[in-house]
Amino acid sequence: MEAPYIVIIATGSEITAGRSLDTNSGWMANQLFELGWKVKKFIGLPDDPDLILSELNTLKQLAETRPVLALMTGGLGPTEDDYTLETVLKLNGKKSYSVEKAKIRLQRIYESRGKQYSDILPTVLRQTHVPEDCKTLDNAVGIAVGFVEPIGVNSYLVCMPGVPSEMKEMFTRRLVPELKRIYPRENLVQKTKWLWNIGESLYQKDFVEANREELFHNVEWGVTANRGYIKCIFQSTESQQLDKIIQRLEKEYPKIISDDVFVYDHEILLAEKLTIAVGESCTGGLLGKKLTDSPGSSSYFVGGFLTYSNEMKVSLLGVPNDVLEKFGAVSRETAEAMAKGIFEKTKADYCISITGIAGPEGGSEFKPVGTVWIGLKTPDGNIQTHSYIFPGNREGIRENASNTALFLLYQSLKQRNL
Amino acid sequence: MEAPYIVIIATGSEITAGRSLDTNSGWMANQLFELGWKVKKFIGLPDDPDLILSELNTLKQLAETRPVLALMTGGLGPTEDDYTLETVLKLNGKKSYSVEKAKIRLQRIYESRGKQYSDILPTVLRQTHVPEDCKTLDNAVGIAVGFVEPIGVNSYLVCMPGVPSEMKEMFTRRLVPELKRIYPRENLVQKTKWLWNIGESLYQKDFVEANREELFHNVEWGVTANRGYIKCIFQSTESQQLDKIIQRLEKEYPKIISDDVFVYDHEILLAEKLTIAVGESCTGGLLGKKLTDSPGSSSYFVGGFLTYSNEMKVSLLGVPNDVLEKFGAVSRETAEAMAKGIFEKTKADYCISITGIAGPEGGSEFKPVGTVWIGLKTPDGNIQTHSYIFPGNREGIRENASNTALFLLYQSLKQRNL
Repeated sequence: MEAPYIVIIATGSEITAGRSLDTNSGWMANQLFELGWKVKKFIGLPDDPDLILSELNTLKQLAETRPVLALMTGGLGPTEDDYTLETVLKLNGKKSYSVEKAKIRLQRIYESRGKQYSDILPTVLRQTHVPEDCKTLDNAVGIAVGFVEPIGVNSYLVCMPGVPSEMKEMFTRRLVPELKRIYPRENLVQKTKWLWNIGESLYQKDFVEANREELFHNVEWGVTANRGYIKCIFQSTESQQLDKIIQRLEKEYPKIISDDVFVYDHEILLAEKLTIAVGESCTGGLLGKKLTDSPGSSSYFVGGFLTYSNEMKVSLLGVPNDVLEKFGAVSRETAEAMAKGIFEKTKADYCISITGIAGPEGGSEFKPVGTVWIGLKTPDGNIQTHSYIFPGNREGIRENASNTALFLLYQSLKQRNL
Repeated sequence: MEAPYIVIIATGSEITAGRSLDTNSGWMANQLFELGWKVKKFIGLPDDPDLILSELNTLKQLAETRPVLALMTGGLGPTEDDYTLETVLKLNGKKSYSVEKAKIRLQRIYESRGKQYSDILPTVLRQTHVPEDCKTLDNAVGIAVGFVEPIGVNSYLVCMPGVPSEMKEMFTRRLVPELKRIYPRENLVQKTKWLWNIGESLYQKDFVEANREELFHNVEWGVTANRGYIKCIFQSTESQQLDKIIQRLEKEYPKIISDDVFVYDHEILLAEKLTIAVGESCTGGLLGKKLTDSPGSSSYFVGGFLTYSNEMKVSLLGVPNDVLEKFGAVSRETAEAMAKGIFEKTKADYCISITGIAGPEGGSEFKPVGTVWIGLKTPDGNIQTHSYIFPGNREGIRENASNTALFLLYQSLKQRNL
C-alpha cells in the first residue's frame, strides 16, 4: 500500500493566538519518524468550527486520490469552544453515542471525589461521546475519549485530546498498534545513541558525511539536538547495517557516547540498590527534580541540598570558608568539598554536586557565564570533578549542567558493570 | 478595509520531523493578537519546494476573494534546502536582484573577519536577493533580507528568516510599521488575571456566561489552562470596559485570584529584600528550580533541602520521628515541622515546605495520589499549612504543587503590601 500522506492538526485558539506553544505536533512527528513515517504538513487552527470543517473537507477530498492520515489534537474538552466531535459528525453526517466504559470511568472519578453521578454536567459527559462506527481510543489519563474516523479508502482522521499527557499515553498505547495494523510496512529497525557536548553539524560532517558511502546504504538517519547532547537516530530494514554504524560510532566517540541516561541511571540504581544524593547551587533543584521524575525513584534518591548562597554551602555542606575565599564558589575545590559534605550528611553511594554561573550576570574573564563544576563521589569513596563551559542562556546552562551530571553518573554506573 | 485573513507558515524539515519546535509562529501570533489581529491558521511545511509552492498557490487563490496576509519564516538561508526565494519567484513569475545595502553589509561582515569580498560563496550571496518590485525588510541581526511580496489586492506574502533573533527584530522594527500602514485599525487594550485551582469550564459558566450581557460588550476573552491555574485574558478598544471586568473578577474570586505569580514573587522579594528557603519532598527540587529561574534570584533564594526520604526529614530538618509515625510523612504536622526546620537551618524570611504523594504508587483511601500538604512560614514567625488533592499524573501533580506554593507565597506577599 502507498504510504499515507500524513498531516498533523493542532486545534485551539490559545495556539493560534500564541498564548500556548503546540508541543504535541512535534512530539507526534518525532514518534512517527521513529516508526518510519514522515509528516507532510502541520496545521494549527483556532477553535472555529467553520475553519476546522473546511480543513477537514479539504483532507477528505485529498483522500479521494491517495491514502491520507490526519492526526488531530484538541477540541475534545467540556467547554463551548470544543468543537471537534461536532465538526467530525458534520463532516461524515453521523450521530454520536456515549462510550459505556468511559462513562463508568467518569462516574468512578466523581465518586472518588465524593460527588454523585447526577453532579456531572452535560458538557463534561459529552467528553465520553464518539461518532458511531468508529474505532475508539481509550483515555487512561483523563476523561475525553479519542477516536479513529474513516475519511476515505485507507484514510483516517484520528482525534485525540490536546492535553499532552493524555495524548501521549493514547498515542503510544492505543494508536500506534492500530496504525501498524492499518499501514503495514517492512519491519524497520531503529537504533539510537547519544553523543555529549558536540554540535550536530560537526557530527554530520565528521561522521555521517565521512562514512556515508561505506555505511549508510539503505539507512535513514536523523539527529535531534538537546541540552548537552545530540540524539543520533538510525533506521534500516537491515539490522546488521545498523550494528556496523553503532560500532563505528562507539569507536569514534568512546568518551562521549551513551544510551538514554535517564532510563539507564534509573534502572541501574534500582537494580543494584544504590542510593544517590545531590547538592546543587546554580541548578537550584533541577537535578533533584530530574532524578525524581520517574516513579520509584524514592528507592534510590535519598535527598539533597540546595546551597545557593555561600553561607548555605558552609552551614549545610561544611564547605570550608577558606576554600570559598581562595578558589571561589565556582571551582574544583568547592565542587569537591560539596560532594564530600553531601556524603557526610547522607551516606549515599553516589553524591553529585553542581556549582556554576548560570548568568546572565556573574561572569568574568576567567570564569565566563556557563562555567560549571560538577563533583561526583562514587561508592569507592573517590570524588571526581569535571568542568565545563556550557553554551546557551540561563535556562540552557542549567539544563546542560543537570543533564551532564546524569551522564557522568551514567559513565560511572557503566564502568561498574563492565 | 476588511481585516486580512492571516496565515503563518513555518518551513523546515526539522520542524515537521519533530526535531525542532517552531516557536516563531506562536511568537508572531502573540504579537499580532496584541495588535488586534487574529491568526486563522498555522502551517508547518518540510523543506520541499513543491509542497511550499502548492501551499502558496492556494493562498494566492484565496486572495482573489479577500485580503490575505501570509507570514512565512525559514528557507532564506545559504544551504541547498533553502527554497523560499526560488519558490516565490516561481509563484509570481518574477526575477530576483541583489539588494545593494545588504551586499555592502555582507561585505563589511566578511572584512571584519579578515576575509575578502571574493571569498563570499554564491550561496551566501544569494541571501541578499529578493524578488523585483517588492518591499524589502532589512535584517539588522543576520544576513538574509526579508521581503513583502504582493499576492493580490491588499494581499501580501511576507518572507522572513527562521532564526528567531533575526525574525523578531525584523518583525518588530520593519514589518509592524508596514502592517499598520497597510491595514489601519483602532488600538486594543489587554488585561490578564490568573485564577487558581478552578476548571476553565466552571469559570466560563459562572463568570463569562453569567456576566456576558452586562460586561462583555465589545470585549474579546480567552482562557488558557495551566498546572494549578487558568489565565483569563480580556481585550477591548475600551479600557474602562476591561476595568469593570477585572473588578468583578476580583469581587467574585477574592481568594483565588492573582497576577503572574512568577513575576510578582520575584519582584517583591527583590524590592523588599526578603529571603526564602524551601524543603521539598515529592517535588524533588522543582520548587527550588522555579524560584531560581529568574536572573537575580540569588538575592533572595537562600537554599533548600530535598528531604525525599523520611530519614532525611528527620536528620536534615529535625522532623520528630513520632510526628512521622503518628501522622505520616504527608500530613499537616509534617509540613509544619519541615517549615520549622527550614527556618531553623536557614533563618529565611519565608520558608516553604512541600510533602505529598506524586504517584502513581503510594496512594491510599484517605490519602489518594495527588494529596499534597504545603507549609509556609511567614516573616511574623507563623506557619500556615494548606492541603490539596491535585489532579493529573506524576508530572502534573508536581507542577501543580510547586506552582500553588508560589501562589501561597504571592498571597502572603500581597497581604504585606495592602
